[in-house]
Amino acid sequence: MARLVMKFGGTSVATIDRIRTVARHVKREVAAGYEVAVVVSAMSGKTNELVGWVREAATLHDAREYDAVVASGEQVTSGLLAITLQNMGISARSWLGWQIPIATDDAHGSARILSIDGTALTDRMAQSEVAVIAGFQGIHLPSGRLTTLGRGGSDTSAVAIAAAIGAERCDIYTDVDGVYTTDPRVVPRARRLDKIAFEEMLEMASLGAKVLQVRSVELAMVHQVRTFVRSSFEDPDAPHMGAAEAAGTLICDEEEIVANQMESQVVTGIAFARDEAQVSIRRVADKPGIAAAVFGPLADAHINVDMIVQNVSADGFTDITFTVPTADFERAKDALAKARGAIGYETLEGEADVVKVSVIGIGMRSHAGVAAEAFKALAAKGINIRAITTSEIKISILIDAAYTELAVRTLHSLYGLDS
Amino acid sequence: MARLVMKFGGTSVATIDRIRTVARHVKREVAAGYEVAVVVSAMSGKTNELVGWVREAATLHDAREYDAVVASGEQVTSGLLAITLQNMGISARSWLGWQIPIATDDAHGSARILSIDGTALTDRMAQSEVAVIAGFQGIHLPSGRLTTLGRGGSDTSAVAIAAAIGAERCDIYTDVDGVYTTDPRVVPRARRLDKIAFEEMLEMASLGAKVLQVRSVELAMVHQVRTFVRSSFEDPDAPHMGAAEAAGTLICDEEEIVANQMESQVVTGIAFARDEAQVSIRRVADKPGIAAAVFGPLADAHINVDMIVQNVSADGFTDITFTVPTADFERAKDALAKARGAIGYETLEGEADVVKVSVIGIGMRSHAGVAAEAFKALAAKGINIRAITTSEIKISILIDAAYTELAVRTLHSLYGLDS
Repeated sequence: MARLVMKFGGTSVATIDRIRTVARHVKREVAAGYEVAVVVSAMSGKTNELVGWVREAATLHDAREYDAVVASGEQVTSGLLAITLQNMGISARSWLGWQIPIATDDAHGSARILSIDGTALTDRMAQSEVAVIAGFQGIHLPSGRLTTLGRGGSDTSAVAIAAAIGAERCDIYTDVDGVYTTDPRVVPRARRLDKIAFEEMLEMASLGAKVLQVRSVELAMVHQVRTFVRSSFEDPDAPHMGAAEAAGTLICDEEEIVANQMESQVVTGIAFARDEAQVSIRRVADKPGIAAAVFGPLADAHINVDMIVQNVSADGFTDITFTVPTADFERAKDALAKARGAIGYETLEGEADVVKVSVIGIGMRSHAGVAAEAFKALAAKGINIRAITTSEIKISILIDAAYTELAVRTLHSLYGLDS
Repeated sequence: MARLVMKFGGTSVATIDRIRTVARHVKREVAAGYEVAVVVSAMSGKTNELVGWVREAATLHDAREYDAVVASGEQVTSGLLAITLQNMGISARSWLGWQIPIATDDAHGSARILSIDGTALTDRMAQSEVAVIAGFQGIHLPSGRLTTLGRGGSDTSAVAIAAAIGAERCDIYTDVDGVYTTDPRVVPRARRLDKIAFEEMLEMASLGAKVLQVRSVELAMVHQVRTFVRSSFEDPDAPHMGAAEAAGTLICDEEEIVANQMESQVVTGIAFARDEAQVSIRRVADKPGIAAAVFGPLADAHINVDMIVQNVSADGFTDITFTVPTADFERAKDALAKARGAIGYETLEGEADVVKVSVIGIGMRSHAGVAAEAFKALAAKGINIRAITTSEIKISILIDAAYTELAVRTLHSLYGLDS
């Protein structure tokens, strides 16, 4: 019997009425013949309530105790959904992270999953019992303490469990009905993708399309878990539809996409990230160790650096440009000003009002000239490019924030993504 | 180093501010040199919220899932108190029932504690780490499922842990400052008892003095856990006071009481229970098996029978009188009416408007005439006695409810309990 993982977030389980709707979704899949594991988040607002109490108790708190408090939210939902399913005549039981167990490291508050023993789960699922799993949580086995995976960790729980039990698919029910070629609020003609490759989704997710946590996509890619993003507003009592029929986006291996279409699309989507700020240091001596001298102090200050551009040097000096989250902009400049003696640059410049636009597509690998087309189209609209970085499957361009919509729409049309 | 268990109920931990007050109580005991374990209930109102959701999800629900949901309340409080203690510079960690573990049977919703392994607790307490224990919960080890001990189970948790770790004392912080000779609302001259024997407290608790759960007193008696009922409104920053100095009532072994006073009091307290109803069946054939014929149908209907009075027979027939909770009165009469053929009685009578007044005292065992004095005093006030039962340390009298206050005050004075 094929196994299926279904994941529902906090708004989908915010009230008992909504939990009943979730149960009807589950019932439909059980009726279709699946052995089902459901992963649930805490009821909407509950995690904030718990975190609020922890912060009220102490600004600086033991992350182990934070986890013990916060993990209770998902515990409640898993029990309530199990009861609701049973009440609908469906055999079900709740599983807490430590009961499975989902073993994690001891990075409390943002633990990483080390291993999941799926034996107990699959034994019970084979007896037609739906496994209702508390998302977001695990256990650090050596200490026996509860851990949490960090915000949005329930997506990661769902994908990891799908991998552990060899599920045919992991369905993520969200408040959007899939992944779009770009943000429909910016480009009304954006269209939903039926399929997207893991690598592309990773770029889309990390570049600002906030459908799935980056970590869960990484995990899905590594373990080849077919992950289907679909709407929690679907009619739960409608006839059963799989990933091929239902509205949604299947995140899957490149080969599954190529196998289904004569010619693959070169570009899959256009992503953009507004909360980046640009920092440039001019006339740095181009010598070994200089990158370490620049980025070491930023790492020490726990500032995440994103785009990094360093051109070949002229006369032994070079310029380095990179982006940081807008929230860390001032701290980044401070850190570099303090390290000026060690780095030895001439000027430090920055610009908070920038946006990074990215063109993403696995098809780029086999198509030349994709980047050149983009630069030409943007130039034709009078959009100045501040910096460029590229990888095999994406081109990222830093521009002034004022041009965001124009740039995204231009590129969306250029690559034939308009519906 | 002497170990101490402290227990705080839901109102004492209802807000972070109150949890801070609890932490100051703990700090005082740590400063006095104790190795401390604190047992906490869920924040006031939280258990009701959780139970409400369970009931909304399904009227009939899996008790295992009920336990998984409801046990989360104490989990939250234990984490929050641990954080608060740490923030005050006191080493502390939270312990969930399954982490200790507190092993119970699988009677979910009202599980009984089978054993507690105190090793991990005492190891950590010996390193000056306060153990903050989620009350009310345990684990059924064979299945690995969470269990709860039933309402008020945190008292039981506290006493059981005190027994397991060999604590010098178990301090129960409540909204009253101890156990009184009777209900002060009925007898303003009632006074707080400094000490009461386990057996007496058991009678007081089960007869309506709602300070401590009966189960926790039973456990304290079996394991000889000195249990001190004291007020949670004590000033937490006042100088340290033990059971001898602080306002409160120590529940302890009879010998500890006798050792401290030249002559023991004959009567310790007067308890009364208003929610009882009287049922009498007249002219039952006095033959073997008749009691089973009467009480079998009541047991089948899950009706708890309290006082049972059966007199010696005259002419081969007898009358049987007993009491049931008022809420079960009509059901009890129905059950007996249906069983009339099997029992073979002449008439079935009942009276809901009765009260059971009990005189309790270990001293009765060595003093004759205690009961006779009571009957005489009540008769002098014109109070009619409906039924009487006695045990070694108590006399229970069933009277019309209208005479409750008069009877209690009369007996309270009679035995020299007025302050």
